Amino acid sequence: MGSIYGQNYRIAIFGESHSAAIGVEIEGVPAGARIDFAALQAFLARRAPGQDAYSTARREADAPEFLCGVKDGIATGAPVTAIIRNTDTRSKDYGNLANVPRPGHADYPAEVRFGGHQDKSGGGHFSGRLTAPLCVAGGIALQLLGRAGVTVQARAIRIGGETEPERMKAAIAAARAECDSVGGVVEAEVKGLPVGVGDPMFGGMENRIAQAVFGIPAVKGIEFGEGFAAAELKGSENNDPYGIVSGNVAPLSNHAGGILGGLSTGAPIVFRVAFKPTPSIGKEQDSVDMSARTPAKLVVKGRHDPCVVLRAVPCVEAAAAIAVYDALLERKKEL
Amino acid sequence: MGSIYGQNYRIAIFGESHSAAIGVEIEGVPAGARIDFAALQAFLARRAPGQDAYSTARREADAPEFLCGVKDGIATGAPVTAIIRNTDTRSKDYGNLANVPRPGHADYPAEVRFGGHQDKSGGGHFSGRLTAPLCVAGGIALQLLGRAGVTVQARAIRIGGETEPERMKAAIAAARAECDSVGGVVEAEVKGLPVGVGDPMFGGMENRIAQAVFGIPAVKGIEFGEGFAAAELKGSENNDPYGIVSGNVAPLSNHAGGILGGLSTGAPIVFRVAFKPTPSIGKEQDSVDMSARTPAKLVVKGRHDPCVVLRAVPCVEAAAAIAVYDALLERKKEL
Amino acid sequence: MGSIYGQNYRIAIFGESHSAAIGVEIEGVPAGARIDFAALQAFLARRAPGQDAYSTARREADAPEFLCGVKDGIATGAPVTAIIRNTDTRSKDYGNLANVPRPGHADYPAEVRFGGHQDKSGGGHFSGRLTAPLCVAGGIALQLLGRAGVTVQARAIRIGGETEPERMKAAIAAARAECDSVGGVVEAEVKGLPVGVGDPMFGGMENRIAQAVFGIPAVKGIEFGEGFAAAELKGSENNDPYGIVSGNVAPLSNHAGGILGGLSTGAPIVFRVAFKPTPSIGKEQDSVDMSARTPAKLVVKGRHDPCVVLRAVPCVEAAAAIAVYDALLERKKEL
Amino acid sequence: MGSIYGQNYRIAIFGESHSAAIGVEIEGVPAGARIDFAALQAFLARRAPGQDAYSTARREADAPEFLCGVKDGIATGAPVTAIIRNTDTRSKDYGNLANVPRPGHADYPAEVRFGGHQDKSGGGHFSGRLTAPLCVAGGIALQLLGRAGVTVQARAIRIGGETEPERMKAAIAAARAECDSVGGVVEAEVKGLPVGVGDPMFGGMENRIAQAVFGIPAVKGIEFGEGFAAAELKGSENNDPYGIVSGNVAPLSNHAGGILGGLSTGAPIVFRVAFKPTPSIGKEQDSVDMSARTPAKLVVKGRHDPCVVLRAVPCVEAAAAIAVYDALLERKKEL
Repeated sequence: MGSIYGQNYRIAIFGESHSAAIGVEIEGVPAGARIDFAALQAFLARRAPGQDAYSTARREADAPEFLCGVKDGIATGAPVTAIIRNTDTRSKDYGNLANVPRPGHADYPAEVRFGGHQDKSGGGHFSGRLTAPLCVAGGIALQLLGRAGVTVQARAIRIGGETEPERMKAAIAAARAECDSVGGVVEAEVKGLPVGVGDPMFGGMENRIAQAVFGIPAVKGIEFGEGFAAAELKGSENNDPYGIVSGNVAPLSNHAGGILGGLSTGAPIVFRVAFKPTPSIGKEQDSVDMSARTPAKLVVKGRHDPCVVLRAVPCVEAAAAIAVYDALLERKKEL
Repeated sequence: MGSIYGQNYRIAIFGESHSAAIGVEIEGVPAGARIDFAALQAFLARRAPGQDAYSTARREADAPEFLCGVKDGIATGAPVTAIIRNTDTRSKDYGNLANVPRPGHADYPAEVRFGGHQDKSGGGHFSGRLTAPLCVAGGIALQLLGRAGVTVQARAIRIGGETEPERMKAAIAAARAECDSVGGVVEAEVKGLPVGVGDPMFGGMENRIAQAVFGIPAVKGIEFGEGFAAAELKGSENNDPYGIVSGNVAPLSNHAGGILGGLSTGAPIVFRVAFKPTPSIGKEQDSVDMSARTPAKLVVKGRHDPCVVLRAVPCVEAAAAIAVYDALLERKKEL
Repeated sequence: MGSIYGQNYRIAIFGESHSAAIGVEIEGVPAGARIDFAALQAFLARRAPGQDAYSTARREADAPEFLCGVKDGIATGAPVTAIIRNTDTRSKDYGNLANVPRPGHADYPAEVRFGGHQDKSGGGHFSGRLTAPLCVAGGIALQLLGRAGVTVQARAIRIGGETEPERMKAAIAAARAECDSVGGVVEAEVKGLPVGVGDPMFGGMENRIAQAVFGIPAVKGIEFGEGFAAAELKGSENNDPYGIVSGNVAPLSNHAGGILGGLSTGAPIVFRVAFKPTPSIGKEQDSVDMSARTPAKLVVKGRHDPCVVLRAVPCVEAAAAIAVYDALLERKKEL
Repeated sequence: MGSIYGQNYRIAIFGESHSAAIGVEIEGVPAGARIDFAALQAFLARRAPGQDAYSTARREADAPEFLCGVKDGIATGAPVTAIIRNTDTRSKDYGNLANVPRPGHADYPAEVRFGGHQDKSGGGHFSGRLTAPLCVAGGIALQLLGRAGVTVQARAIRIGGETEPERMKAAIAAARAECDSVGGVVEAEVKGLPVGVGDPMFGGMENRIAQAVFGIPAVKGIEFGEGFAAAELKGSENNDPYGIVSGNVAPLSNHAGGILGGLSTGAPIVFRVAFKPTPSIGKEQDSVDMSARTPAKLVVKGRHDPCVVLRAVPCVEAAAAIAVYDALLERKKEL
């Protein structure tokens, strides 16, 4: 029951790495909203594989087909469903994985969970490929948020221990050369959100964003504002004093990352997301034969990214946009 | 809509810092389950205020009254509701805060969100006091998990930059002496969970635990396994190889923190939670008069913890237990 | 998981007939909303037992205590929780029922479902007494709807086969004299709802109202507009033609009961609810000893209503008000 | 937010009468479950149009394409999504309806709800055509239930006031000849469900089935067991006495329709559903021009059923199966 997110902008993601298609059903796109397909396609292109030397060579058009809910670019008010055909699947590349789980992937717990019936090739429903429909839903949310004056922007701030773009790319290239992989950190900023969006306790902006962002494969941590660094500060250092800015109450600093008590403060929401190094590496690894229950060596063939962080940047924007737009609608019904 | 968590072990927390009572309604306690009230009370005592020199002097019995769902210590199958009376509220201590929001607290966004109608004294529904009913629900979940062979244990691993217990306490004492506060990090471990618990995408163990844990006030970050450190590792370092242990498949290391693809791997689930320094400090702070929209100085009087981290340890256990038990029930219906 | 209803005005009902208390937690009461306690109490009085010769002699104050979410009669925006103490329980009256299920009651399936741990006396969580917290939540919803120009009114239109008030009362009195009971039909009307409230498919006004109304014990049927009689009509008879009324589009008749495609049409929502005769009767009945698995005769002692229909009238209003207000909030977030 | 139903077998229906495709996403098909496509197709054929002289001439293959979640006929554990292309739409037939709402259809409230952006042709998301994906999800649920020993069977018991099959068909033919339509009643029976399935209050079997069944267009009433007739009975007549049958406790009659307190009693669940006459009739009707706000005459051209009841029979089975299987899974997690 993990494929649905949201109460007001509710998305249901479906598909597997090598099924006929993947896609998303969205409830909550307001009737009459224009969907800018060109802008959406440009957004999707940012996560698409095969763009440059730094990501996987698997090439797919990844152009979503909208099955319903949109007519002449305008939302009808009915659920919007878009699918993306899986055209270039080469499942044979994964054939040898069926019985030897890849370290760092979901293969082994999925085998137990689904009794061996899960689509083993390419990660099945756990595949990073499922971030494509996430980005379809997120790309639409970004457009809807944009019209409400809210922007979401993310960027890689660390890859393979490097913080400068050129050095990040060099780290990726080095990892590729070693048949290894690197991880990194993405930082995102949500601007323009009114004060008081979010709900107490389990409905806070941190809870909502975290629940969405951990839906992106390889995410292992999230922190808001000072985050883990706040644990080292004193209250007098970490508290954001208030002042009057342009006649309005506003926090004068933003250690809180724009959230207090789960509610938006009017300052930008700032959060960082930790991505582990992509587990698909070319190096030989120790694994097991799950049937025989014997040790086995594994060499993962096929195409893989030495680093998912760059492609994950729009995914973080998408997940955040979905969470923020859902929270904004929740707030709206009280107004 | 933020006060409800869970689909299978569903809790609805209610109350405000100075309302007549606080409490929790729980659906999903199995009929026939024994609730060990003594063990529950001992668990609640760990978060209760006024235990030692290091926490707030506010003293309350915090003994929950069970209104329904339990008879002679045995769950009846009906919803379990427990309340805790607010007996020692001294709301006058907070009187001067009504119009001058405390930096670092929810006061200002709550004022906007609730149009000034929220219970301003003591944080209202945002109060750390609401962790008492969280611990009631979590304490029961811990008992139910324990009978299924699953344990949850947390401890403070950093306070005020210190990692040794005695130095942590010294850091708290120093903060108190300065009318300031310190934050810290709590690490938790869930042991004994079967392989394959959790759901793909938004229902993963990370998503579930994060959504619950961010419901504890002052939490600003969460990471699983290597967490943010994983971003610095290579795939070959971060992947956990598999081996055969006692005849079973098992990861031979635990960089993943016991979770892959959102599913439990059989290794302990390990996560760390960052707590900001408690925002209630005795030092004078810059704030504003929200009505007059003029700057104002604020000195928060009354009782406050210079550090919530020690009392937060059982809260982290409670939140994790609720999330894990809910996921375990989700899994059960497939078996 | 049946005790929670709604997405936007979400109620969680708890308690058992003979537990310490029963009550309801409500999320979604707008901050700043005034709760008219006198009006609420007057509403609750309509379902309270012991009012006249026609209902049970069990007398309880049934005055809810509001634990939180309301301050000086104004909603704070936090969840509102109200409890009603069970003061007059006489559980001994039900002692002989523990092992011999009452025909027409939930006793037997509840025994199986809850493994014999359910509170057997007085129906436990299945008791009609749980309609008291339903009416607390519904009474508040009625007030909130009233301020939006929406009214909900129900009345008994049939009792024991009679349609005239005096003859209905006579039928009840006759049933009482025979140690028997009678059922009836309640008709409700929701006026003032704007056009277009409700959602397609499973979120239609019929779906929503039915899901809430079947939460009242003893309800066995619901129909909207012409209902079952529509099955006998021709399309040309049952369709409501449109006309222009006071400058606006309006249906000129109301066979549809104010709902088309699940959406409100602007005409009053009209529905009827069938109540079975109350199963608690004084006559000797055939039952079984569940332990011995042998036939047993049962005579139910204690106090019981020969007819719940009159007391159910405000319960139908409450359930409908909760459903309608929840749908109205759902609509609001699109505006 | 009306297109999703269920917590454990959760379906999300999408599509519009004239969109590119319609379909359904299903979470909760157990990994390893075989889907019998031939049996599913035979089930779908029962609701398909164009089968005989009694239903609409619109002919469509209505063969679902499974996009994911099934491999070689076996469920993988990932969400199952199936789509049906809309190949024969002839939207021009509906062109003249854009501004003149059809009496008895959702056209007018949908126009208000969706601001005129809804897909007007053929009923959009309100179209009876959406029962095709309902039947896909229901057909799979029927197979899963069947393996658990539970069957669901429905049949028309009244059409146009007639109760004999031949006379029902004659009534339909007569209505067609008059360019009119007739309604009817479908009765369904669920057999083999264990005792104690369902949840108290809003999660009762009646609540669940009603919420699902009102998702079928044209349904205006539902009753369980004696239903509205129970309102005319005495308690001593309506109560089902218990006896020992084959060594087990069992109700000796079934006035309750297999449900007490929302829980299954072990007796068959019996319910009846009232269908209004299909609102699409060839006769001239009074309507309005919504833009001009002037009266208008309407003649609906194109193909329409003079009676949907026969095609609705499998839809009732589908809706009931979805509700019952969802409830069964809910129960399973307690075992």
